[in-house]
Amino acid sequence: MIVSALLTSLAINSALCVLFFTLYSVLRKQPSNYDIYAPRLLAEGTSTQRSFNLERLIPSASWIKKAWNLSEEELLSSSGLDAVVFMRLITFSLKIFSFAGIVGIFVLLPVNCLGDQLEDVDFSDLSNNSLDLFTISNVKNGSSRLWIHFSAVYAVTGFVCFLLYYEYEYISSRRIAYFYSSKPQPHQFTILVRSIPISPGSSISESVERFFTEYHPSTYLSHMVVRRTNKIRSLFDKAKKVWGRITQLQSDPSHNKYQRDGCFGLFGHKVDMKLEDIEENVRLEQSGGTSAGEEVRAAFVSFRSRYGAAIASNMQQSVNPTQWVTEQAPEPDDVFWPFFSASFMRRWISKLVVIVACILLTLLFLIPVVFVQGLTNLSQLEVWFPFLESILTMDIVSQVITGYLPSLILLMFLKIVPPVMEFLSSIQGYISHSDIENSACSKVLWFTIWNVFFATVFSGSALYQASIVLEIKSIPSRLAVAVPAQASFFIAYVLTSGWTSTSSELVRIFPLICSLIRRPFTKSTDNELEVPSIPYHNNIPRILLFGLLGITYFFLAPLILPFLLVYLCLQYIVFRNQFINVYAPMYETAGKYWPIVHNGMIFSLVLMHAIAVGIFTLKKRPLLSTFVVPLPVLTLLFNEYCRKRFLPIFIAYSSETLIKKDREDQNDTAMAEFFNKLVTAYQDPAFLPVQFSANTDSLSSPLISSEV
Amino acid sequence: MIVSALLTSLAINSALCVLFFTLYSVLRKQPSNYDIYAPRLLAEGTSTQRSFNLERLIPSASWIKKAWNLSEEELLSSSGLDAVVFMRLITFSLKIFSFAGIVGIFVLLPVNCLGDQLEDVDFSDLSNNSLDLFTISNVKNGSSRLWIHFSAVYAVTGFVCFLLYYEYEYISSRRIAYFYSSKPQPHQFTILVRSIPISPGSSISESVERFFTEYHPSTYLSHMVVRRTNKIRSLFDKAKKVWGRITQLQSDPSHNKYQRDGCFGLFGHKVDMKLEDIEENVRLEQSGGTSAGEEVRAAFVSFRSRYGAAIASNMQQSVNPTQWVTEQAPEPDDVFWPFFSASFMRRWISKLVVIVACILLTLLFLIPVVFVQGLTNLSQLEVWFPFLESILTMDIVSQVITGYLPSLILLMFLKIVPPVMEFLSSIQGYISHSDIENSACSKVLWFTIWNVFFATVFSGSALYQASIVLEIKSIPSRLAVAVPAQASFFIAYVLTSGWTSTSSELVRIFPLICSLIRRPFTKSTDNELEVPSIPYHNNIPRILLFGLLGITYFFLAPLILPFLLVYLCLQYIVFRNQFINVYAPMYETAGKYWPIVHNGMIFSLVLMHAIAVGIFTLKKRPLLSTFVVPLPVLTLLFNEYCRKRFLPIFIAYSSETLIKKDREDQNDTAMAEFFNKLVTAYQDPAFLPVQFSANTDSLSSPLISSEV
Repeated sequence: MIVSALLTSLAINSALCVLFFTLYSVLRKQPSNYDIYAPRLLAEGTSTQRSFNLERLIPSASWIKKAWNLSEEELLSSSGLDAVVFMRLITFSLKIFSFAGIVGIFVLLPVNCLGDQLEDVDFSDLSNNSLDLFTISNVKNGSSRLWIHFSAVYAVTGFVCFLLYYEYEYISSRRIAYFYSSKPQPHQFTILVRSIPISPGSSISESVERFFTEYHPSTYLSHMVVRRTNKIRSLFDKAKKVWGRITQLQSDPSHNKYQRDGCFGLFGHKVDMKLEDIEENVRLEQSGGTSAGEEVRAAFVSFRSRYGAAIASNMQQSVNPTQWVTEQAPEPDDVFWPFFSASFMRRWISKLVVIVACILLTLLFLIPVVFVQGLTNLSQLEVWFPFLESILTMDIVSQVITGYLPSLILLMFLKIVPPVMEFLSSIQGYISHSDIENSACSKVLWFTIWNVFFATVFSGSALYQASIVLEIKSIPSRLAVAVPAQASFFIAYVLTSGWTSTSSELVRIFPLICSLIRRPFTKSTDNELEVPSIPYHNNIPRILLFGLLGITYFFLAPLILPFLLVYLCLQYIVFRNQFINVYAPMYETAGKYWPIVHNGMIFSLVLMHAIAVGIFTLKKRPLLSTFVVPLPVLTLLFNEYCRKRFLPIFIAYSSETLIKKDREDQNDTAMAEFFNKLVTAYQDPAFLPVQFSANTDSLSSPLISSEV
Repeated sequence: MIVSALLTSLAINSALCVLFFTLYSVLRKQPSNYDIYAPRLLAEGTSTQRSFNLERLIPSASWIKKAWNLSEEELLSSSGLDAVVFMRLITFSLKIFSFAGIVGIFVLLPVNCLGDQLEDVDFSDLSNNSLDLFTISNVKNGSSRLWIHFSAVYAVTGFVCFLLYYEYEYISSRRIAYFYSSKPQPHQFTILVRSIPISPGSSISESVERFFTEYHPSTYLSHMVVRRTNKIRSLFDKAKKVWGRITQLQSDPSHNKYQRDGCFGLFGHKVDMKLEDIEENVRLEQSGGTSAGEEVRAAFVSFRSRYGAAIASNMQQSVNPTQWVTEQAPEPDDVFWPFFSASFMRRWISKLVVIVACILLTLLFLIPVVFVQGLTNLSQLEVWFPFLESILTMDIVSQVITGYLPSLILLMFLKIVPPVMEFLSSIQGYISHSDIENSACSKVLWFTIWNVFFATVFSGSALYQASIVLEIKSIPSRLAVAVPAQASFFIAYVLTSGWTSTSSELVRIFPLICSLIRRPFTKSTDNELEVPSIPYHNNIPRILLFGLLGITYFFLAPLILPFLLVYLCLQYIVFRNQFINVYAPMYETAGKYWPIVHNGMIFSLVLMHAIAVGIFTLKKRPLLSTFVVPLPVLTLLFNEYCRKRFLPIFIAYSSETLIKKDREDQNDTAMAEFFNKLVTAYQDPAFLPVQFSANTDSLSSPLISSEV
């Protein structure tokens, strides 16, 4: 790619960003869009309908100021620790790339430009030069200036590791402080027991009762056996849709409730379908329907203290490790009920199937990526579609195609990956939405790194991705050849994919379109209000991918860094705004996403070191290559230390923490009432009394009990 | 190697075996050798001195009958569960290779012989044929008879996996039964706490007391802070030597005690060195010497119940995971005291150093192996040492050199590895002799597999070991070329190394020589009696290596199997005899060695599958190669299932087990006395009252308290 193509892309994307931001400033002030741009405020009742005035049509930047002024404590109290951790990922990346940016732009970029390895440099007309002029490719082979790059690699690695340690420590302390400051919550006192052995002559409930009164007599409180409720659940879904339709018809504006399910009621239902019929059906199922409410070999067991629950979940309970398998229970709202029909063996097999499916998805996904890579190569496109030759020779078309289109297509394909990965995680055997998203987050991250970074790097030069990992020895040299060659593609990728995704996040294009289509068919818009939760498994891998690009390219092509910094600044403002106006927390993992971030960063560093080893060999400075080798070793040792020092905090709370917290509650008179509620906290929502009213119970699942 | 060379080797080794067995039959009956061949019986007082008669000079086989008749229950009661598990490893291998032997000798061997791939077969004089005649190399390329080999690979894999599952299950149940039947033991009630944080103004002892009374008030019993006692210990060692010398001079035959330390008193000491001086020194150190008895940030903490101890050791205690690090305590006798001077950081670093040292040892060890490989190649030897040509051309010399010498030299080199690995494990931070041996066992196993199997296989054809692992894709094809080429070497290896090691184990050559040298210098032999414990880290890897050879070669060169079966039968008889007469258990891991055996076997299977894939491709049957591929996948899945099903049992006991066992003791009146003893059970032997008498305390360390 030449400089002018980059400038074209920059112009298009900047214009788009400005357009989107302006559009947002106007659209957000229209009352009809409140459910899109401020569903959270609307649900909380803090956003009031304003009368029409001119101000509504003039773009304003007040929201930026508001987002900027949000403090971490405010964010913590309104959106939970996960949101704080997410914002810290962005500020953490900003810190890294500010440092790397200063080093890259003011030290490495001049060194690269002043090199003379590439011969066809035309200083009279910069815009016609290749972008390679600004990369390490332009430094003369064997030049002593490579020492500067070498030092930069060491400095940035040291800085990133320092920040990683500091952040891990900070988030660990926040996590513990969050636990200390939390009110008693059902999931702290409850464990999930699975693979309960069936003893002849007694029900599962009796087995559970007997086992826990026998082995945990002092702390055992109650239990709730899980039942297979797919049939009841489907009846409920029907009822919910009909109820939604009825309330919609009644157009009762006082019914603004949290609702987190899909756009039901969208395409209408037969209203004559009797709600009472369904209610009757559900009651029948609940009372006598043993086939639908069949007991599953799993139960939620509640204890009198957090420490008691932790002991039961940390210790192997039974002689046979595949029986009485325990784990900490998720929050009641967070339970993923459809899962509970699998035994130890079935869960294990479904996990294996999911792993295979992920590998297959990763392999099949290469096909569109290769096609996209073909698009960046104009001459190849002309060979494939000769009839397009006349159009392709036009200057503007060729620049749009090389600078913008390829990464846009890739972006569209990547959009479908997070939902697919989430689905795969959901059948893998996780019991909570948060675990599913956490697992999907890892899956999406490795998928993205493989399919965006490696596939682009290697299919750009040749299609030998599969063989490359099997020959470990030659990886650095192959990376050194292939990675710098794709520098211009990734600079364009940051511009298009990065900037565009931030703008579309702000404008919420998909919900906006959805709402625009829906509006003519529905009479009132604000009673089907849906407060979304932020899809972490979608956003965290994306930011980490840009982090990977920044870390691997900062010494190869420092030109990528300014674009990355702009991207991160946009993200910073946009997500703070979205946390205020749009997203409400659905569950709280208390920072469990951070270890994924940490591992992703360590991987980026080691990959960068591998590339550095290859590059220095390629540039005829084997001494520098040798000196880089200790760096990945030290980085991995650092990672190992962090695993020992911080990771256990993210897996379970310590005895000290739990006992302290338990003692605080000991003299609390409210605890008796809490324990009363705890007994029924993990009741399957399908078995709650059918009540089509609107009272919200803080302990039982608010999702369905309050809606249906 | 040709058939006649193998026959020569067979003759030499059979003769040696018969000789050693006869020698043993005679030597064991000489009273002067009782301390070598029956130290255990002597220590237990069951072996009585017999008067001289002719019978003593006639070889007899009565010991074989006695060893044969030993039942598993007898072995369990006399030598503990570890001995049972060790014997089961041998019977397990016997079962596998009986099955593989039947398949190999009666099915595969005829198929191989009837092939005609090798042209220079001379049926008139079998002894001049190459051993390759009996290997898969002789089967015609593309022959449909390879289906037989293919089926054999599947059948043997299935059989091994079935047996592995059955054995794992059996040993797990034995382990639990052993725990249920055990008397209350100090290590069941005690944990070791390390990295205790230093709080200003209070001693470590006070910190421990405060922490555990705070967080484990109902179960905490007492604690014992570990002290740095290197100086006292060295004084003790001196005292022990002098004491040994004195008792030796007194020639008091009633002083037959267990002694497990080296051959001290061997080369004499100055007897005028006053014992009282040392005693005085020790007393001084114990009372006032704060520098020598400095407190270490570690303590043994005892609890009132096994379950209480297990909770404290399984749960993360402190908010900071690198502080208050807990683990189950070893038996008091088993504690490796010299270690206790390391912090979390130092322990971690020493572990890394040990890993690097192991890798270096593995790499440096290749040099003698390559030299040994040179010896098997006569022509190369003639090139190196031209002056030997006249000797080397002699028939008998050449056969001895090719058939016997190479593996003997390799054997001598391998002898030094287990002690070195044990030393490395001891500085790695383990707190007990059993953990050190267990870790050394794994180290020796992988070392042996790498340096005997892989180094022989690859340096035999070319020196590309290091590069081979880095090119994963080409491993099967390279193995397929190199492994069958070394079949004759490994057949000879089983004969020499296997058979010889068994005989030398029986005759106990090294202790015998040691005793013969020592006898002239000492007047009485039986007061320095030393009952050795079996070095598992030496014997288990050796048997597993032969298992690996058997599994990988059974379908390539089935001729190896009869030799292997003879080896295993010899081992079976010899070790049963040694358990009766020689080895006393020093500690009890209750079968913790089995997971190492299991992993070793799984590795052997997967390696065999890799070779099979390569061989079938080489033999122009790519279809068979493809059909073999599911086999390693299934084997690894099987292994993964076993890890989930059985491994947790070998790591910690379950709540169910612990609570049941605790309840049994609840009404036992002897428990009060036990708890009294428990308080001082983990006293450092260096701090026990200095008493040069002979009463044995079952709870305190019998090693030193009873001797000194």
